Amino acid sequence: MEISGDLLIGKHTVRGTNGSIKGIDAATGEALAPAFGGATLEQLEQACALAWQASDIYRELPLETRAKFLETIAQNILDIGDVLIERCVTESGLPRGRIEGERGRTVGQLRMFAAVVREGDFLGVRIDPAQPQRQPLPRVDLRLRYVPLGPVAVFGASNFPLAFSVAGGDTASALAAGCPVIAKAHSAHPGTSALVGRAVQKAVADCGLPEGTFSLLFDSGRDIGQGLVSDRRIKAVGFTGSRGGGTALMKLAAARREPIPVYAEMSSINPVLLFPHALKNRGAAIGKAFAGSLALGAGQFCTNPGLVLAIDGPELDTFIEATAAALSETPAATMLTPGIHKAYESAVNKTAEHGEVKTLARGCAAKGATQGQAALFSTTAEAFRANPELHEEIFGAASLIVRCPDLATVLDLVEQLEGQLTAALHIDEADYADARRFLPALERRTGRILVNGFGTGVEVGHAMVHGGPFPSTADGRSTSVGSLAIDRFLRPVSYQDMPEGLLPDALKTANPLGLNRRLDGKLQLSK
Amino acid sequence: MEISGDLLIGKHTVRGTNGSIKGIDAATGEALAPAFGGATLEQLEQACALAWQASDIYRELPLETRAKFLETIAQNILDIGDVLIERCVTESGLPRGRIEGERGRTVGQLRMFAAVVREGDFLGVRIDPAQPQRQPLPRVDLRLRYVPLGPVAVFGASNFPLAFSVAGGDTASALAAGCPVIAKAHSAHPGTSALVGRAVQKAVADCGLPEGTFSLLFDSGRDIGQGLVSDRRIKAVGFTGSRGGGTALMKLAAARREPIPVYAEMSSINPVLLFPHALKNRGAAIGKAFAGSLALGAGQFCTNPGLVLAIDGPELDTFIEATAAALSETPAATMLTPGIHKAYESAVNKTAEHGEVKTLARGCAAKGATQGQAALFSTTAEAFRANPELHEEIFGAASLIVRCPDLATVLDLVEQLEGQLTAALHIDEADYADARRFLPALERRTGRILVNGFGTGVEVGHAMVHGGPFPSTADGRSTSVGSLAIDRFLRPVSYQDMPEGLLPDALKTANPLGLNRRLDGKLQLSK
Repeated sequence: MEISGDLLIGKHTVRGTNGSIKGIDAATGEALAPAFGGATLEQLEQACALAWQASDIYRELPLETRAKFLETIAQNILDIGDVLIERCVTESGLPRGRIEGERGRTVGQLRMFAAVVREGDFLGVRIDPAQPQRQPLPRVDLRLRYVPLGPVAVFGASNFPLAFSVAGGDTASALAAGCPVIAKAHSAHPGTSALVGRAVQKAVADCGLPEGTFSLLFDSGRDIGQGLVSDRRIKAVGFTGSRGGGTALMKLAAARREPIPVYAEMSSINPVLLFPHALKNRGAAIGKAFAGSLALGAGQFCTNPGLVLAIDGPELDTFIEATAAALSETPAATMLTPGIHKAYESAVNKTAEHGEVKTLARGCAAKGATQGQAALFSTTAEAFRANPELHEEIFGAASLIVRCPDLATVLDLVEQLEGQLTAALHIDEADYADARRFLPALERRTGRILVNGFGTGVEVGHAMVHGGPFPSTADGRSTSVGSLAIDRFLRPVSYQDMPEGLLPDALKTANPLGLNRRLDGKLQLSK
Repeated sequence: MEISGDLLIGKHTVRGTNGSIKGIDAATGEALAPAFGGATLEQLEQACALAWQASDIYRELPLETRAKFLETIAQNILDIGDVLIERCVTESGLPRGRIEGERGRTVGQLRMFAAVVREGDFLGVRIDPAQPQRQPLPRVDLRLRYVPLGPVAVFGASNFPLAFSVAGGDTASALAAGCPVIAKAHSAHPGTSALVGRAVQKAVADCGLPEGTFSLLFDSGRDIGQGLVSDRRIKAVGFTGSRGGGTALMKLAAARREPIPVYAEMSSINPVLLFPHALKNRGAAIGKAFAGSLALGAGQFCTNPGLVLAIDGPELDTFIEATAAALSETPAATMLTPGIHKAYESAVNKTAEHGEVKTLARGCAAKGATQGQAALFSTTAEAFRANPELHEEIFGAASLIVRCPDLATVLDLVEQLEGQLTAALHIDEADYADARRFLPALERRTGRILVNGFGTGVEVGHAMVHGGPFPSTADGRSTSVGSLAIDRFLRPVSYQDMPEGLLPDALKTANPLGLNRRLDGKLQLSK
């Protein structure tokens, strides 16, 4: 498959005429061919109009059609073959194995949502049958199902060029919910976006869906992204990126005539809490594993462990020594873009020069212009409490260890933290009683609490929450990974006294779709 | 039970010292004793501090304790006896039968949520067991439950002084979810609020709950309401009221350091669509029923039918004649407050004087200073399309009939409407094919679609949606009536590889709470 540099507007490939962008070889900084034409506002309008036209049709197609569509996207992505892997490796600077794994994850995610669509539990069917004899007033017949919100704008993430980009988790869950998608390609991987976009576009055609079910736009500035979020036909936004970018979209969405939900996954430092017995018994081993999690993918994960809270003392020193030893052998790694590398260097230097911070270790020196060198810092509890800038995410392989006098201080610092995607507890059985006292504080401010592990490696399953209170996400009531992500793009509608002939199939008394339903409040399985 | 005029801050009754408000006899406009002291910012701070202290404790109490608490509130409200009914009738101007019915609804709602809490489906338990042998990587153990958001601010509605006020649907669903509540009393019924507040406060004590589980504040201005929404310890807002009030709270909540969800139920004109065969066969009967719905409770319902769309002609005239005849015999009714009456009169006069509007009928003349006189208007499709001010809600018994040339125009006008709580279709079997074409447009912009009925009379059940896209509510993904309302105050948290001893009971493998659970994505009933 060739990369044309065109926009995908419904079934058409159209040259964008509003400036252009080029992919960059992450390792060398060289521009890659071809140039991608940025969309004009007229082209944005066309995409929105097509999405709107498609919306009412797409959402009422049989669930089987929708499921097959998701599976077809998955197969079409696989069918691109090595061209996709190579382009993605070049644009992202990520290792081939990682990108192959991410393709598997992307395809698996689409197939999982196909299964979710077939099963139909997301329709949330509830039926309260009429009670004509009820006194003092008869009870009406009420039936509820969830319907899709309408067209969704998806902003791809730089750090997951496949799994959280054009056909990633946001797109998969929105399409599964029955929402057309307009994807705004991330400028860090336009070629990857173009290839995947073509795979989705082809799946739309393969499955005979309305063309507006999917469009892909390139944006040479910010007008198209902003215009998308502000367009009256867009009913929700999926975004993964920086806090600045996400909060800007939140403001735009809130200022609309009709405000819409924004699901922005933004900023998290993912505290790691080392409890005394675990630290004493396994400090070196935890340190080694920590260094691995910290440096994975050049630290460019939303769930990267950017903060360690532990009681100061020789046990913590053992942990630090093991971490430092592992980091000192950790090669510098090419970062996703020159801009991300520059921001990382700047934040690391600023932290290193902070009067209250000590540099404990660095990874191997960079061998390329855009390679990030891991960094480990420490500070005191008082300094951490007094300097909110030390709570900010550094996107990359940098982490800050806070030396605390006791567990009460650790808990107190946890209570100072903003919302987080994850928190990790390292505990042995003798630590359980202490750990239990931390759970309320962690539940209040994180989406996922993990034990004796690290937040990197986000399982795509049914019980995953990749979300959390602001600012880790824009809407802490949701997850952007796992099957529950479909709920973000749905809302309930109730039908009162509607004749069988007009009811959607999901709500018909005979249950032709074989759905699990809640009858008079009681959950009933179809089989 | 005596009405003291004090704030309820946790277990204390405290005199508010920030100005005062008095209840008003809705029928006479006379001020009622006693005066209610407005809360100071210090008193607000105390209530928030207590709510925060209570939050972690209250949310982890056994479900049975929480259910009993809700039932105790219900019983305590009944135990107030006639004093409550009388005060509520006086303050609201609503008939005794209505208020008795509303008390029944309030009590029933609390008991329904008690049953929902006992059943535990709202915990949304999902378990993906570990797969240590999985290749290429072992799968971790993931378990998900929903946790309460934290303390909730509830703003009572003027038009449901019991069912949507201090212990109404927002409070009941928030408490059911595990969230402490700080209620801001509506100044239209401070005495009713005080009596019900005492019943809740007593239930907190009866059940041995932390005192901060509930507080009740009076506000002599707007500082306390605004301060509540802005307080860092408040994690969600429930509101029923005007569009202006609701959008102001939305802005405050969005501007916080940590933005929080606002569930504001605001503004809806609830279109009624009359289809040709129904109109021809039953026009007069529909008209009579319509007049009844329009004038019910002086038209002071969120679901009041403020707009009728139908094809012009003799059949529509028959409907109008029947409506006009019924309205002309409809007594004027005391409105909730002098302010609401004044706003109603002003909006009705403005509409009557509109160059494109004809007045078709009025109800009986007012016999009291604050009585609202029903009003029926008509206009043309072109005028309705061209004059957005005709789309605005008039809170009270006023409705606008739009004479359309054909059904295509009716559908086109539906597409011009903002988000609505309800839409009503009046159809006979011969209309079904036409009606089907309207469903997508209605599903996109309403929370409830009803057939051959009117939106007034909102059943408190499991399949009810009392919600809808903006501006009918602030968040179209939710309902404020029915058991699904509990979902508004919850968010998911995932636990990874957590030892059994630390897992909350809801997630323990042995399922000690007997919950329905989703295992590896498959729903499994506990019994």
